[in-house]
Amino acid sequence: MSVNDRTPVTVIGLGAMGSALAEAFLGAGHPTTVWNRSGEKAAPLVAKGARHALAVGEAVAASPLVVVCLTTYDATCAVLEPASAELAGRALVTLNTGTPEGARRMAGWARERGARFLDGAVKNVPPAVGAPDTLLYYGGDREVFDAYEATLRVLGGDTVHLGDEPDLAALYEQAVGGLLLPALLGFFQGAALVSARGLKADTLVRFTTKWLEMIASELPAIAAEIDSGDYTRPRATVGVFHQAVAHELQLGREADIDVSWHLPMYEMLERAIADGHRDHSVSALIETLRKPVPQA
Amino acid sequence: MSVNDRTPVTVIGLGAMGSALAEAFLGAGHPTTVWNRSGEKAAPLVAKGARHALAVGEAVAASPLVVVCLTTYDATCAVLEPASAELAGRALVTLNTGTPEGARRMAGWARERGARFLDGAVKNVPPAVGAPDTLLYYGGDREVFDAYEATLRVLGGDTVHLGDEPDLAALYEQAVGGLLLPALLGFFQGAALVSARGLKADTLVRFTTKWLEMIASELPAIAAEIDSGDYTRPRATVGVFHQAVAHELQLGREADIDVSWHLPMYEMLERAIADGHRDHSVSALIETLRKPVPQA
Ligand SMILES: NC(=O)c1ccc[n+]([C@@H]2O[C@H](COP(=O)([O-])OP(=O)(O)OC[C@H]3O[C@@H](n4cnc5c(N)ncnc54)[C@H](OP(=O)(O)O)[C@@H]3O)[C@@H](O)[C@H]2O)c1
Ligand SMILES: NC(=O)c1ccc[n+]([C@@H]2O[C@H](COP(=O)([O-])OP(=O)(O)OC[C@H]3O[C@@H](n4cnc5c(N)ncnc54)[C@H](OP(=O)(O)O)[C@@H]3O)[C@@H](O)[C@H]2O)c1
Repeated sequence: MSVNDRTPVTVIGLGAMGSALAEAFLGAGHPTTVWNRSGEKAAPLVAKGARHALAVGEAVAASPLVVVCLTTYDATCAVLEPASAELAGRALVTLNTGTPEGARRMAGWARERGARFLDGAVKNVPPAVGAPDTLLYYGGDREVFDAYEATLRVLGGDTVHLGDEPDLAALYEQAVGGLLLPALLGFFQGAALVSARGLKADTLVRFTTKWLEMIASELPAIAAEIDSGDYTRPRATVGVFHQAVAHELQLGREADIDVSWHLPMYEMLERAIADGHRDHSVSALIETLRKPVPQA
Repeated sequence: MSVNDRTPVTVIGLGAMGSALAEAFLGAGHPTTVWNRSGEKAAPLVAKGARHALAVGEAVAASPLVVVCLTTYDATCAVLEPASAELAGRALVTLNTGTPEGARRMAGWARERGARFLDGAVKNVPPAVGAPDTLLYYGGDREVFDAYEATLRVLGGDTVHLGDEPDLAALYEQAVGGLLLPALLGFFQGAALVSARGLKADTLVRFTTKWLEMIASELPAIAAEIDSGDYTRPRATVGVFHQAVAHELQLGREADIDVSWHLPMYEMLERAIADGHRDHSVSALIETLRKPVPQA
C-alpha cells in the first residue's frame, strides 16, 4: 500500500498528548492535518509533514477521521462549535479525560451535528503513543471503530472496542484509574514509615513492585468471586484485613504519620463483618460498597 | 556435599505456612524436626522424612536453627516458654505477621533467653515457598543471617537482610503491605461501577494489570522525589489528582456506590494544596501524611 492510500486524519489539540498522537499518524504515513488554539504548537508537526489548518472548520473538513485531544469535553464542544457544519458524516473521536456523564453529553452533541462518534482513552503517557503494547480503549459506534481500527491502532497496538455505549471508555477510565490514588497513598505511607527510620523510600521500590505483581496475579480470582457472588472460598478473609487495618491504625504512633485515611476502610470492614462476611473473601467488600450509607 | 552436611532445622508451627516451610527444608535435604500444638499436622511431613518432636523443648534442642511460624508473637512466646532453657545459643527465626512493636518485644524476649534472633516475613503464599523468585526479608542479627543465609534461601531464592534492627521485617511488611487494601478497594469500586452496567468484573482484569504495571514503572521516580524532597518536576500534580477525586465523588451517582472512603483522600489533597503543593508532584502528599491533624 502506498503512503497515499492511508486514511487522512485530522488531530485537533496539540498539547503533550495531541502532539504525540499527530506524530504517530505522521510516522505511519497518514496525511495529517493539525489545529490548535495556540497555533505555534503546530510548528514541530509541520516540520514532520503535517498540514496546518488555520481554522478549525478547515481542519475538520480535511479528513474523514477527526481525533480531538483537548483538556475536557467542554473545551472540545467549544472548539468544535464553529465546525458544526463540517462535522456531519465524519468520524469524530475524542481522547480527553472526563466522566461517563460528560462522554454521554459529548456523544449527544456530536449526534446533533450528524457526526459518528467514538470516545476513547489513552492508557499511557505521550511518549508511549504508537508502541505495540500501548493500550487505548474506545466506546461508541462499532461501525466507526471497525472502519478506522487499523488507523486507530497506529496510536497503540493494544486497541480495544469496549462496546457501543459512548461513555464506556470514560467509565473504564474511572473503574481502572480509581485504584491509582489509594495505591499511591499506600506507597507514600510506607515511605513515610521507613523514612522516619532513616531508610530511603527507594528501598521499598523493589518490594512494592513484587507486591503489585502479586496483586495483579490475584485479580482473576477476585474478579471471578465478584462475578459469581460466591465469597465462600476465601484466599484472604474480611476478618484478616480487619485485623490488619487495626494494626495500621497504630502506625501513626510508629512514625507520627496521618493514618486517618484508613478509618473509612476500617468502617467498611466493620460493616462487612456486621453483614456476616467475616470469614468470607475480602472481595465481599464490594457488597458493602454497593450499599451506600445514607448521608447525613 | 552429602545430605548429612545440611544444617539441621526445626520448624515449629505447622499451619499452612509452617508446613510449606518444613516441606521446603525437607525437599532440600535438611534434617528437619517439626512440632505443632495439634500434633496430627506433623503426619504429612513425617511421611516425607521429618522427625516429629513430642515436646517443644525437644524440638528446639534438635537444631541450631529454629524457625517458628505461628499466628502471632504472643502465641510464639507462649509456645516457646517451656523451651526457654533450650533456646540459649540457638538461632531463632520468627516468620509470623505482626507489628514492629511486637517484633521488638519478641526480640527482647529472645534476648532474655540467650537466643540469637531474626524476624522475617514470607512475601508470598505457601505454595510459592521454595521458588527461586519468592521473596523473604529479615531484620535482626546480621551474623545469624550470614551463618544461615544458604539455609534460609531454601525458603525462597529472593532472600534479603534488611538491617540489624529486629523490627525491620515487620516495618517493611506494613510499609509495603499497606498498599493492598486501598488498591483492592479501588478495584472493587471499579468492579461495582462496571457491574452496575451489566459488565463483568473480569473485563477489568487485563486493564488493571496494565495499570498496576504502569504504577510499578513510576515507583522509582516517585521514590526519588520522596528521597530528595524535590516535588517541583511533576509527572502528575496534586492539582490533577484533586480534580480526579472530585470526579470520583460523583461516581456514587453513576452506580449508587459508596465512595465515602475517598473523602479523607480528598481532604488530604486539599491540605496539600493549602500548603502550596497544587502544582507539585503528587508525591508531595507524603508531606501531608507526615503532618497528622490533631485528633479531636
Ligand atoms: N499527558 C498525559 O500523560 C495524558 C495521558 C492520558 C490522557 N491524557 C488526557 O489527554 C487530554 C490532553 O492532555 P495533554 O497532556 O495533552 O494536556 P495539555 O498538554 O495541557 O494540552 C491541553 C490541550 O487542550 C487545549 N485546550 C484546553 N482548553 C482549551 C480551550 N478552552 N480552548 C481550546 N483549546 C483548549 C490546549 O490548547 P493550548 O495549547 O492553546 O493551550 C492544548 O492543546 C487530557 O484530557 C488528559 O487528561 C493525558
Ligand atoms: N498463609 C499465608 O498465605 C501467609 C503468607 C504470609 C505470611 N503468613 C503468616 O504466617 C503465619 C502463619 O500463617 P498460616 O497461614 O500458617 O496460619 P494457620 O494455617 O492458621 O496456622 C496457624 C499456626 O499457628 C498455631 N497457633 C496459633 N495460635 C497458637 C497458640 N496459641 N498456641 C500454639 N499454636 C498456635 C496453629 O497451631 P494449631 O495447628 O494447633 O492450631 C498453627 O500451627 C501468620 O502470622 C500469617 O500471617 C501467612
